Amino acid sequence: MDDAIKGFISNFSVRRALGGVGIDEFDDGASLKIGEWELVATMDGHTVSPLFFPGGDIGRLAICGSVNDLAMMGAKPIAILDSIIVEEGFSFSDLDKITRSMGAAAEEAGVAVIGGDFKVMPKNAIDKITIATCGLGLAEKGKVILDSGTRPGDKVIATGSIGEHGIALLSAREQFNLDTDIKSDVRPLWATVEAALAVGGITSMKDPTRGGLASALNDIAAKSKVSIWLDHSRLPIKKAVSAASEMLGLNPLEITCEGVAVMCVSEDRAEETLEAVRNTPYGREASLIGEVRGDRPGYVLLKTEVGGTRIVDKPMGEPIPRVC
Amino acid sequence: MDDAIKGFISNFSVRRALGGVGIDEFDDGASLKIGEWELVATMDGHTVSPLFFPGGDIGRLAICGSVNDLAMMGAKPIAILDSIIVEEGFSFSDLDKITRSMGAAAEEAGVAVIGGDFKVMPKNAIDKITIATCGLGLAEKGKVILDSGTRPGDKVIATGSIGEHGIALLSAREQFNLDTDIKSDVRPLWATVEAALAVGGITSMKDPTRGGLASALNDIAAKSKVSIWLDHSRLPIKKAVSAASEMLGLNPLEITCEGVAVMCVSEDRAEETLEAVRNTPYGREASLIGEVRGDRPGYVLLKTEVGGTRIVDKPMGEPIPRVC
Repeated sequence: MDDAIKGFISNFSVRRALGGVGIDEFDDGASLKIGEWELVATMDGHTVSPLFFPGGDIGRLAICGSVNDLAMMGAKPIAILDSIIVEEGFSFSDLDKITRSMGAAAEEAGVAVIGGDFKVMPKNAIDKITIATCGLGLAEKGKVILDSGTRPGDKVIATGSIGEHGIALLSAREQFNLDTDIKSDVRPLWATVEAALAVGGITSMKDPTRGGLASALNDIAAKSKVSIWLDHSRLPIKKAVSAASEMLGLNPLEITCEGVAVMCVSEDRAEETLEAVRNTPYGREASLIGEVRGDRPGYVLLKTEVGGTRIVDKPMGEPIPRVC
Repeated sequence: MDDAIKGFISNFSVRRALGGVGIDEFDDGASLKIGEWELVATMDGHTVSPLFFPGGDIGRLAICGSVNDLAMMGAKPIAILDSIIVEEGFSFSDLDKITRSMGAAAEEAGVAVIGGDFKVMPKNAIDKITIATCGLGLAEKGKVILDSGTRPGDKVIATGSIGEHGIALLSAREQFNLDTDIKSDVRPLWATVEAALAVGGITSMKDPTRGGLASALNDIAAKSKVSIWLDHSRLPIKKAVSAASEMLGLNPLEITCEGVAVMCVSEDRAEETLEAVRNTPYGREASLIGEVRGDRPGYVLLKTEVGGTRIVDKPMGEPIPRVC
């Protein structure tokens, strides 16, 4: 599928503008250089099912998804535009709940909702509702954080524990009958990222959404031409997530998170950055999970509990459907 | 429905940013003031059915829709981001055709496609494909063109004939069996608008999409607190559109266009603007269709062929479903 998507993208003859980051980078967002600033823009369609799940809903997800993509580029989130499409007959009260949740998430993240579009499709032409959001943020020109900036010697920080969003969604789909109280971690990360950026050592960042930590770190390893070595004993995975993953045959490293960032940080700033992240409300459980090396570029490797090493592959998409 | 949407919008507590145009203006786009510039952003979801229709397809429509909204704000279109959602099993060859068409329209409009998102929904969870596009454009700070800028004495120019997109779509839906060769007018309008802006007299602009000319002019009349007087004999409506409209009981003034702009222009620049528009490829059929007055503010009025006057109401939405 990835190759097919690259094929479709090649149908667009011009793929960057104003000297900024373009679509070919496959980064968390694109950018335009405007005067002294770099405007960062990011767009995502949200199709999550069910619409309301433990810890969040499609509205909160749509706002946080865009806010976090901006944050991962090192851009302060400023504004959101949305495109909401609903099925004819969709409940007004649910739409009110969802837009309230969008409003609350936007307020928490400090972004304005400046524009949008609303369309209705006939009954059965769409499953309830989809929300596409475009996030707009600002960084100083040339200061955006790219996936390609990591160097050997950097340390890897996770700002929280992983896998909770995907497992929460699965448990909300009744047929799985998971006996767990795991909630989605969906939350806006700018305050946490801002604190970390202030330390000045971040070389790349990603939020492990579709494809989880495995996908995010493989992207960084490939684009930065480095290897990333994770330490299994340090992976921040809650027991309930481990147990549910094992039962379902899922790899927690591949499960979508919606409120965690993984940051590569230069070694001399790693401790200070970890401290800064831990002092933010959504970074309290941050931990050092690995390190960056120059050998075996493009690989993510996991040091197992018994002292072995195994390759962490980039998963083929997301193992759980309609997760975001 | 409009009141319901206003209610949902009020769930967003902050609705503008950086001193720009916000969501409450209900204009063609929003804006952020960045240094000496005003970044204009606009977002639309496209659900048109059928996907391929005489004169265009959903891909061309998605690009032109965003480009034209930027142009209507007086902003030079720079970049597009998209969110494509397809039904599981959607034809790769159709997706290739659609993205090629997006690429061709973007190239014609001079915009880059800088970012996007692609998601698959299960079979029957969505009718084939939807495409949301976000357009980003630039104007000099404070130079965006708002719906509220028109003054009594202004003249009203239409850059082309109206109603063709909606009728083309209806004729493509076989059950209507319209014996017409009307094609959609879907096309990017920036070159036409740029020529008109250079004359320096434009006070407001809108592309009459959903709800057609009636909706666009009512918006301008309400926001500018003026009345707009149309002359029936000057309305640019092709015979085939008139005939099809009559047969279907539709008012051509309410039918969606996708390649026409309506411009209000100060009287002293009206002739020169018309000339400039006519010298552009998509403005050859431009005409003066009416004038702006100070009496009866908020009303659009049509001088009929027999010398009477009737009120042109803002239509309740779009009479033709899934037109864009």
